[in-house]
Amino acid sequence: MSTVTDLLTANRRYASTFTHGNLTAPPTRRIAILTCMDARLDPAKFLGLSEGEAHVIRNAGGRANPDALNALVISQQFLDTNEVVVIHHTQCGMTGLRDEAVTELLSERFGGPVERQQYGGFDDPVQSVLDDIATIRADARIPDDLPISGFIYDVETGLLTPVD
Amino acid sequence: MSTVTDLLTANRRYASTFTHGNLTAPPTRRIAILTCMDARLDPAKFLGLSEGEAHVIRNAGGRANPDALNALVISQQFLDTNEVVVIHHTQCGMTGLRDEAVTELLSERFGGPVERQQYGGFDDPVQSVLDDIATIRADARIPDDLPISGFIYDVETGLLTPVD
Repeated sequence: MSTVTDLLTANRRYASTFTHGNLTAPPTRRIAILTCMDARLDPAKFLGLSEGEAHVIRNAGGRANPDALNALVISQQFLDTNEVVVIHHTQCGMTGLRDEAVTELLSERFGGPVERQQYGGFDDPVQSVLDDIATIRADARIPDDLPISGFIYDVETGLLTPVD
Repeated sequence: MSTVTDLLTANRRYASTFTHGNLTAPPTRRIAILTCMDARLDPAKFLGLSEGEAHVIRNAGGRANPDALNALVISQQFLDTNEVVVIHHTQCGMTGLRDEAVTELLSERFGGPVERQQYGGFDDPVQSVLDDIATIRADARIPDDLPISGFIYDVETGLLTPVD
């Protein structure tokens, strides 16, 4: 558990100078960010977000999968956000990933049949951002006039490029 | 789009001093963090994580829902993580949230029937962490010996408390 011990040491250091104890749940910038779990991405840092300012939803690829859509609905209906930003990135581990290949690998490694799931792999991050914006728009629980923008984060430069 | 303009300005500032351009996808600390989308939580900051070190999966509540489980599987099988930390928090917006209440509110606001979904509300964050650890353990795609630990983050102090 040495990694966790290190994280807890860092946490005590963080708490020792903590100044955000009076924040409430609704994000002050009224925005939700949907992005990838990738370790190279620190969305708060690369977007200049402080504690309390934005919801951050992260999964494999930053996809608008069913649970991410549920999170966006909660964010908008209960915590007053009114804008979404979808950010995928270069060199994503989900590039080229096929559900069949994942299922096959799991069956091999775990020695038995594994139910096939939708993991959300894609071929092109620009297209996957466009697809996810369309998926969010198509959800009956999302307001028609919700501003949604999309970007690609470049892991080699730290820069965002808009997807139009 | 003024919020997004501000985020892009902050992004250019971040990129102007960016030094992480040579990182690869597998997290160097080989750990995945599962936590809530709540704006008050900055997991990289409160755990002392730098770019490249850990996967961070976030949704409404930090729940081990199907898409989070898929992300953990990808993290472990394709990107070599071998440990999970589940972090829920005090004052979570998911506390007391009932799927029926969400569905009813959505039907009222959008003027029509809305399919009921599992949003992941809970009553007690300690119990929800224990439930989610059990859910991860029960998944046939998760190694039996995977270390999983659980914590509650206190939004008033910035401190983590272990859930045993």
